[in-house]
Amino acid sequence: MQLIKYPSRENWDELLVRPSIDNKLLLKQVGKILADVQIKGDAALKKYTKKFDGITLRKLFVDAKDLKQSESKITVELKIAIDQAFDNILKFHLTQKEEMKEVETMLGVKCWRKSIPLDRVGFYIPGGTAPLFSTVLMLGVPAMVAGCKEIVLCTPVSKEGIIHPAILYAASKVGIKHICKVGGAQAIAAMAYGTETIQKVSKIFGPGNQYVTAAKQLVQLDGTAIDMPAGPSEVCVIADSTARPDYVAADLLSQAEHGIDSQVLLISDNAELIEQVNLALETQLNELSRKKIAQKALQNSKAILVANLDEAMSISNLYAPEHLIIASNNAITYGDQVINAGSVFLGHHTPESAGDYASGTNHTLPTNGHAKAYSGVSVDSFVKKVTFQKITEEGIRNLGKTVITMAEAEGLDAHANAVKIRIK
Amino acid sequence: MQLIKYPSRENWDELLVRPSIDNKLLLKQVGKILADVQIKGDAALKKYTKKFDGITLRKLFVDAKDLKQSESKITVELKIAIDQAFDNILKFHLTQKEEMKEVETMLGVKCWRKSIPLDRVGFYIPGGTAPLFSTVLMLGVPAMVAGCKEIVLCTPVSKEGIIHPAILYAASKVGIKHICKVGGAQAIAAMAYGTETIQKVSKIFGPGNQYVTAAKQLVQLDGTAIDMPAGPSEVCVIADSTARPDYVAADLLSQAEHGIDSQVLLISDNAELIEQVNLALETQLNELSRKKIAQKALQNSKAILVANLDEAMSISNLYAPEHLIIASNNAITYGDQVINAGSVFLGHHTPESAGDYASGTNHTLPTNGHAKAYSGVSVDSFVKKVTFQKITEEGIRNLGKTVITMAEAEGLDAHANAVKIRIK
Repeated sequence: MQLIKYPSRENWDELLVRPSIDNKLLLKQVGKILADVQIKGDAALKKYTKKFDGITLRKLFVDAKDLKQSESKITVELKIAIDQAFDNILKFHLTQKEEMKEVETMLGVKCWRKSIPLDRVGFYIPGGTAPLFSTVLMLGVPAMVAGCKEIVLCTPVSKEGIIHPAILYAASKVGIKHICKVGGAQAIAAMAYGTETIQKVSKIFGPGNQYVTAAKQLVQLDGTAIDMPAGPSEVCVIADSTARPDYVAADLLSQAEHGIDSQVLLISDNAELIEQVNLALETQLNELSRKKIAQKALQNSKAILVANLDEAMSISNLYAPEHLIIASNNAITYGDQVINAGSVFLGHHTPESAGDYASGTNHTLPTNGHAKAYSGVSVDSFVKKVTFQKITEEGIRNLGKTVITMAEAEGLDAHANAVKIRIK
Repeated sequence: MQLIKYPSRENWDELLVRPSIDNKLLLKQVGKILADVQIKGDAALKKYTKKFDGITLRKLFVDAKDLKQSESKITVELKIAIDQAFDNILKFHLTQKEEMKEVETMLGVKCWRKSIPLDRVGFYIPGGTAPLFSTVLMLGVPAMVAGCKEIVLCTPVSKEGIIHPAILYAASKVGIKHICKVGGAQAIAAMAYGTETIQKVSKIFGPGNQYVTAAKQLVQLDGTAIDMPAGPSEVCVIADSTARPDYVAADLLSQAEHGIDSQVLLISDNAELIEQVNLALETQLNELSRKKIAQKALQNSKAILVANLDEAMSISNLYAPEHLIIASNNAITYGDQVINAGSVFLGHHTPESAGDYASGTNHTLPTNGHAKAYSGVSVDSFVKKVTFQKITEEGIRNLGKTVITMAEAEGLDAHANAVKIRIK
């Protein structure tokens, strides 16, 4: 890790710049795929799956039978773990259900807000080396709690033409029935525009490679909502002299192993701790199966030495990390200073990986500084909050003059008339 | 209004198609303005204000003195109306504040979620003929309730070089101190990227013309959040034999007067009512100052005759109107069937204009079918919901095996290690 000592405040912005990605060319390429799927539907899905994944799909959807049998195709240990994670995630997300609160703003003027589930949503689960069944839970549980009726899940099949049974098991846990064996930009197009067999959804969730990300950007411009803008995964660890260097190193590595573009930041007021973390990183790196990835990510990473943890909190708030670990005996106190972060892990026994899998919080979080304005996925992401109002004859009389005066001042006569006609 | 009688279900989609806008060329033009403001800052803002608005700006910001004096420059009647609307909007939005709920998902594993206000937000208030001070309240009150510290408001000055005092008064009511006399795409650029005098914001709110809309789309791709995608304003009125034709006509006109692209839809199970509404429209039209606009909007509008109100609700849910008025004695019952709508007005004494100004609900709502996936502006729009967790030594032992098993099944060793090192 690159060490930066006591940077002055005017250099913070520069210090925290993330690599930017110019995807204009990519957007063009992906735009063609989207247009093709819009015109040719399922045939285009099969064509691109053959072209990009080398797979000839006879059926687009996973059989109900395979979904049922998935439970028997994973180890008992993994089934128990998924069940436990499901329970914890469910418990936490159930607290996010919003009760309807009616308020009478004036006598006879009642207003309330009701959370109504999105009727059709789409999940994208990437293929590749790791089967991301944890993401199926992280999207599926809040959708379940919200009450979404129809979920379509798209995920590419492996070279052997199959989907990992853990993905299928997690999908069945959250009640997903439609699993489509298609990946890439073509999957996003299918969910956004619909095909002969896939019904158009109103919102698309889930991570993906650069093609998937570009496709999500384009369909959003075209009217389909998406969970949030994408970017490489990140962690910022703030640690003081009470932190254990080996724990901190383990947490940094758990982020670094995600990809060579992973963003890892350590901020401490203790030069010795930083040194010891660096030593621990070297030792622990050697044991990792994804050593090369983690090593490359660490080369682009920074350790920042600051005067005190208040300054560390200010830097973190400017950076707005996806994950923030506060490894200090005073973690709770410093936690109160958080302004911008996706999810926060407090204390020495709270590794990010707990939240990545099973503590209960969601792992679909804003990256790339978006934590300044976006929240992670939650039950909110799967509902519309629709406002209602019911006004009585007395109510419109009480409210009428206010509306008429304002409407006329804005030059909108017909708005005023709609009230006048009711109170004359 | 065009009358459609008993359309069969397979024709509903076609019947409800909204006009689509191809803004590719516009995006290019606007992209140039954005780039120019990024490079030249305030000088570019002054240049474009001269070019597009014909105004030479000496100062970019409204003086604190002018903001203070705004109260004395509006009529007492308007001040009272704005104050009343402010109170009602505040009352309703205060119910949207979320309490922190902590849950212990397993012994020693505590998770909670905290709403943290966005630190800097930007409002765009269009210029033109009508001073939209109501929108200042609709954006400013939830921002206030959320606790946003810094708000910059951009709005173009009139040909006389001034901003309507009602806008300034509404701004001062919600505590806005920075009012920038710039409009158009250049204003969006200034808020998204910052200039010498305008600090970059993390989210931009507010309506605008096609240039503003295009600019908001572009800055969103570039990392600044926006309130929601834009489109022409809409109302769907569902009315049965209990509805009063003159009330229904007044409500349709209050939408139609917004612009020639306004979308107006009437759905009824009663042919006579539709006929009477049409007659009332003709009478009421003649009294309007914006008659020509409303007339043109009505030419593109539809009245749909259906078998019963259940069918009307199904059509409305497919259309997903920004505003839905249910003019029926059974409005509450039909209201339970709402799946897709921005804001719903129940009964005969609840005109849309009540919600547009002063009943308490927000008037910044999803148009163009976006009510299928988006909510209107609320306190939620001005906060990030950040998750926190604190795990004890006992907690990580309880949770550990689950995390390790899942991480290893996903092939992420370092994730597993971060737990193993803490429980060994």
